[in-house]
Amino acid sequence: MEQWTSLAPYLGVAGLVVAALIYASVKKGEVGTAQMAEIADAIHDGAMAYLKRQYTVLLIFIVIVFALLYWGVGGDTALAFLAGAACSMLAGFSGMSAATAANVRTTQAASSKGQGPALTMAFNGGAVMGLAVASLGLVGIGALAQIFDIWEKAGNAAIINGFAMGASSIALFARVGGGIFTKSADVGADLVGKVEQGIPEDDPRNPAVIADNVGDNVGDVAGMGADIFESYVGSVIATIAIAATASMALLDTLSPGVTAATESAVRLGAMSFPLLVIMAGLVASLVGVLSVRILQNMDPAAALRYSTFIAAALMMAAAYWLTGQLGLSTGPFWAVLSGSMAGIIIGLITEYYTGGQPIRDIGEASKTGSATNIITGLAVGMESVAAPVLFIVIAIGLGFHFAGLYGIGIAAVGMLATVGVTMSVDAYGPIADNAGGISEQAGLGEDTRKITDGLDSLGNTTAAMGKGFAIGSAALTALALFSAYTSAVRAAAGSAIVVDVTTPGVVIGLFIGAAIPYVGASLTMKAVGNAAFAMIEEVRRQFREIPGLMEGTGKPDNRRCVDIATVAALREMILPGLTAVIAPVLVGFILGPVALGGMLAGATVSGVLLALMMANAGGAWDNAKKWIEEGNLGGKGSDPHKAAVVGDTVGDPFKDTSGPSMNILIKLMSVISLVLAPLFVQYSLNLF
Amino acid sequence: MEQWTSLAPYLGVAGLVVAALIYASVKKGEVGTAQMAEIADAIHDGAMAYLKRQYTVLLIFIVIVFALLYWGVGGDTALAFLAGAACSMLAGFSGMSAATAANVRTTQAASSKGQGPALTMAFNGGAVMGLAVASLGLVGIGALAQIFDIWEKAGNAAIINGFAMGASSIALFARVGGGIFTKSADVGADLVGKVEQGIPEDDPRNPAVIADNVGDNVGDVAGMGADIFESYVGSVIATIAIAATASMALLDTLSPGVTAATESAVRLGAMSFPLLVIMAGLVASLVGVLSVRILQNMDPAAALRYSTFIAAALMMAAAYWLTGQLGLSTGPFWAVLSGSMAGIIIGLITEYYTGGQPIRDIGEASKTGSATNIITGLAVGMESVAAPVLFIVIAIGLGFHFAGLYGIGIAAVGMLATVGVTMSVDAYGPIADNAGGISEQAGLGEDTRKITDGLDSLGNTTAAMGKGFAIGSAALTALALFSAYTSAVRAAAGSAIVVDVTTPGVVIGLFIGAAIPYVGASLTMKAVGNAAFAMIEEVRRQFREIPGLMEGTGKPDNRRCVDIATVAALREMILPGLTAVIAPVLVGFILGPVALGGMLAGATVSGVLLALMMANAGGAWDNAKKWIEEGNLGGKGSDPHKAAVVGDTVGDPFKDTSGPSMNILIKLMSVISLVLAPLFVQYSLNLF
Repeated sequence: MEQWTSLAPYLGVAGLVVAALIYASVKKGEVGTAQMAEIADAIHDGAMAYLKRQYTVLLIFIVIVFALLYWGVGGDTALAFLAGAACSMLAGFSGMSAATAANVRTTQAASSKGQGPALTMAFNGGAVMGLAVASLGLVGIGALAQIFDIWEKAGNAAIINGFAMGASSIALFARVGGGIFTKSADVGADLVGKVEQGIPEDDPRNPAVIADNVGDNVGDVAGMGADIFESYVGSVIATIAIAATASMALLDTLSPGVTAATESAVRLGAMSFPLLVIMAGLVASLVGVLSVRILQNMDPAAALRYSTFIAAALMMAAAYWLTGQLGLSTGPFWAVLSGSMAGIIIGLITEYYTGGQPIRDIGEASKTGSATNIITGLAVGMESVAAPVLFIVIAIGLGFHFAGLYGIGIAAVGMLATVGVTMSVDAYGPIADNAGGISEQAGLGEDTRKITDGLDSLGNTTAAMGKGFAIGSAALTALALFSAYTSAVRAAAGSAIVVDVTTPGVVIGLFIGAAIPYVGASLTMKAVGNAAFAMIEEVRRQFREIPGLMEGTGKPDNRRCVDIATVAALREMILPGLTAVIAPVLVGFILGPVALGGMLAGATVSGVLLALMMANAGGAWDNAKKWIEEGNLGGKGSDPHKAAVVGDTVGDPFKDTSGPSMNILIKLMSVISLVLAPLFVQYSLNLF
Repeated sequence: MEQWTSLAPYLGVAGLVVAALIYASVKKGEVGTAQMAEIADAIHDGAMAYLKRQYTVLLIFIVIVFALLYWGVGGDTALAFLAGAACSMLAGFSGMSAATAANVRTTQAASSKGQGPALTMAFNGGAVMGLAVASLGLVGIGALAQIFDIWEKAGNAAIINGFAMGASSIALFARVGGGIFTKSADVGADLVGKVEQGIPEDDPRNPAVIADNVGDNVGDVAGMGADIFESYVGSVIATIAIAATASMALLDTLSPGVTAATESAVRLGAMSFPLLVIMAGLVASLVGVLSVRILQNMDPAAALRYSTFIAAALMMAAAYWLTGQLGLSTGPFWAVLSGSMAGIIIGLITEYYTGGQPIRDIGEASKTGSATNIITGLAVGMESVAAPVLFIVIAIGLGFHFAGLYGIGIAAVGMLATVGVTMSVDAYGPIADNAGGISEQAGLGEDTRKITDGLDSLGNTTAAMGKGFAIGSAALTALALFSAYTSAVRAAAGSAIVVDVTTPGVVIGLFIGAAIPYVGASLTMKAVGNAAFAMIEEVRRQFREIPGLMEGTGKPDNRRCVDIATVAALREMILPGLTAVIAPVLVGFILGPVALGGMLAGATVSGVLLALMMANAGGAWDNAKKWIEEGNLGGKGSDPHKAAVVGDTVGDPFKDTSGPSMNILIKLMSVISLVLAPLFVQYSLNLF
């Protein structure tokens, strides 16, 4: 069975071929009128221009880190780092290409063929990203595992940690930069266009409207994709690392009755299991993705849900079968099951907090003004952490109960194994959003808008659920990486480390770690403010200086707005990005690996809670505003609506910039610690 | 030297006598006009009525917990619990009596004698609270220590943990209830009076204005006093507990070269040291308090600052001398010094974030509306956690470096030993605030108002610093209680416990613990909303139904508003209060004492960060509004001012209800765990 792992890169390549075929089928779709093509081209060009400049900036960072790793840890790890960074960028690039091709074709399908084909087009656009993420992960991990022969030499498993670190580094900048881009464009477009000039959303006269559409792609497609890619490879690599360094006691949990003679076989089985599970997950995801074509005439929400359930069920069946084949107990299967269930439940909880009674509470609170809207939104966000945390700890508890420390890692893998389809559903959202924007800008008929609005509104729900899922998976992945880190320290130090919170070094680490997400959130919120300010100035300037812009006779300079958002996002992403990279290195070398363990625990807990609070409050504010716009409490333009707009604006950086950045922050700090663990053990000042 | 501890109760009684004399001197001051007396009586009666009803409600809680402790832990601990609760209530009662007597006399002193005597009057009013807190702590701990002879029988030291639990229980409800009262009255008075009816702040026509003044007393005097009382006794008791169960290795740190023969002497010295330090602190505080009379003609801010510094210097000198007398190394002295310095520095950092560049940044952000005001305020609050956390961890690090685990406890004691004077400065704030309100309502001349405004504005600064200090001391106290808890578990279990964050039980505890402050903050914010809503309805009704109210011919029904705030506060404090009490009990009995250790660590870290964020953001929003009102950016009534009012309203529950509640939450959960530790060891299901 284990030898099947050698097929991983090939299966990954096959997945990429399917993604390419889907991309080709998307491209074959009709583009519609010349005006639609022009808008779509502007979005595509803007997104690609942003991506190229972002990658250029990151190249400097990658080269520096590559050199440091080469010199400090070893050439193999440095190469793995490079591969991880490259795969993450490639996934982002292909996802973005497909998304910016699918948006206009979705509009056209809605206009000429109806809801079913439009849903399929939008979903297929997202599926390219979903399958690219899953396949590139398989190719990367599978190929590196072969090259460094980790199955025979478990000691080499540490090398592929570099792959996760590469993926994480790109993810941080992609999430933060993308988040700043999308919100500065959004705020600029809304504040000057809607509020000051009184023109509708997505009005073609608004110079920032293209930048806003580009933002949906760079934030919600490329940023989200990099985030999920990181969780995906991080969880698999952490689980392999845990298995590679597992004690006999842990191996006995995984395969009762293990002896010195069977040890290496059991270890090999445990190491291969996560990779085999995601191989099965990719196949299951393909089935799920293709099933949407058959389900397209159902209710769209149901179609997307079923495709996810089909994939999850198939993956789970395969995981059960695999435990038997690998000679493992059913424990790891139950851990996979609990991780997968926790992911789904956290998504449903998110759906409640951003769509149920809480949004009506926020709406009601808007009757007494924007202050009470804000207070209620914050209270909802804070309350909303409880239930997801409960299910995260249940997943941890069950994972551990069934398979020890390995169980926490494999539960994360279970949550992420069907990423091919969950990520497709995620990426569907911004495509549908863009499709709606294009139909507005191109002035298409009401029938078309009704379809694209319906698909867009579904996209908002899937996006909110996707955010909850991203946080839940980040939490488990960070914990898995944390476990791998402590195993790595133990391996390097030659004895177990105890991260005891009754010792001062750990308490100090805990406090420092818990403060970092606050500082990161503050930096990213200010960054959005700065970038939005530049955008507002530019949009105001264009309305002032371009003759006939309001009358529709002058043309806005869209490109200039895209440029401003790009430059601002790239400038503002540096500081929060470097903070996350440097903090664990400083603490590790100065306070020591044990205090660093405390720091990682503090950052993970604090980061997960802030992320949940910010994402849910932001989503709830957004939908409370939409609920009022549906005609409740006086509808659009009423005083409660004005109050709700304030909440929505506060929620924007919460849910799309600062909140999601937390996911990466905690994973990146863990994976950097994992890779550098041997250096900390050897060279730290060990103040504690 | 150790035998001096037997003087503690007598010294405490002496302190109470001084407090009584100061109270008598306050009462001797002139009340002014009949109208002033009437207003003052209304405030006094309202505050006392609230306190009586609150204590009646708490009586039920106290009786139940007393019975449970009696049955579960033992009669002695139950008695100590009762004493702690009684002392806390007595401190609150005497502080409130003095504060509501001093407010009107401060107004009259400003009117007839000028700034110096007005400052002395307001400060003396606060000093009754400050000295009552310090003295009652000494009386309680000193007397219980004698009664249970803990100096001879170190095993009995655990009994006085009950005293800290009693103080904590009262503190939680006092802080939460007081916070809800004060903010509901404030929001009700502002929203209907200032915004809807357009009458000035503190206008006597406003039916909620007396309730608002009462709120300053129940929130900022009684609530703050109970909070600080809890930290004060908690830090001393935790340090005694650590010393009572200290290992030989720890004793060797405190007195190098300790042998089996000298062990009990060293232990006795280490146990007496905290009590002797606060005895010295009380004497030093008396000197500090009396020095204000001499310094009263200086700049008021400088006078208050010098009085604090004088007390701190005297206490420190005594602590240094005491280490020598007790045969301890100078280590504990350095720990006292670092705790004391950290407290002062955290206060200064708070002053910067609620008065420096950050408030101008928030003001500037108000130019683009309330949304950017809110985003910037939240970003400031999040950033503001970093520096205080840095100094908290430095205090932990130094405390540990100089005196091991004992050092963390004694650093907290150092921070709190001069509570007699720091609490006096704290309680001065609401008295000066009330004095300003009374001079406005009684229509006194501009000269008087200028003095009371000046004293009030200083009170805002001291209040902000006091909040920072309260959080810092809560953090160290909670950590000291946490250390005491782990020692207690070790003593009960017969072997050391390791709260290792690489084990799943601790990780689960960490997540649950970190989520509790979020839930608590959500509950208290909603509670303020509910209570404020009831108040708004009532104020609107009075303006609608009482003839001639706006014209000044009708009289508002102040009493009814006080009543509504009272009932709402008492109703709404139950749920957040019980959550804090029940959570550690459930986790302890179900998941086990080790997971509970993780929970306490998670709650402490998360609670401290949320408290800092909320208190500083709230203070910064408040002062940003005041900065605009000083004439910046268009001044009062401008668009930026309107935006800043929204921020101030959001900040109100942040800084006066939810933020401060966190302090108590973390201390109360720790002290409950400490008292029940033996039960958890014996009866827990120990799921982890």
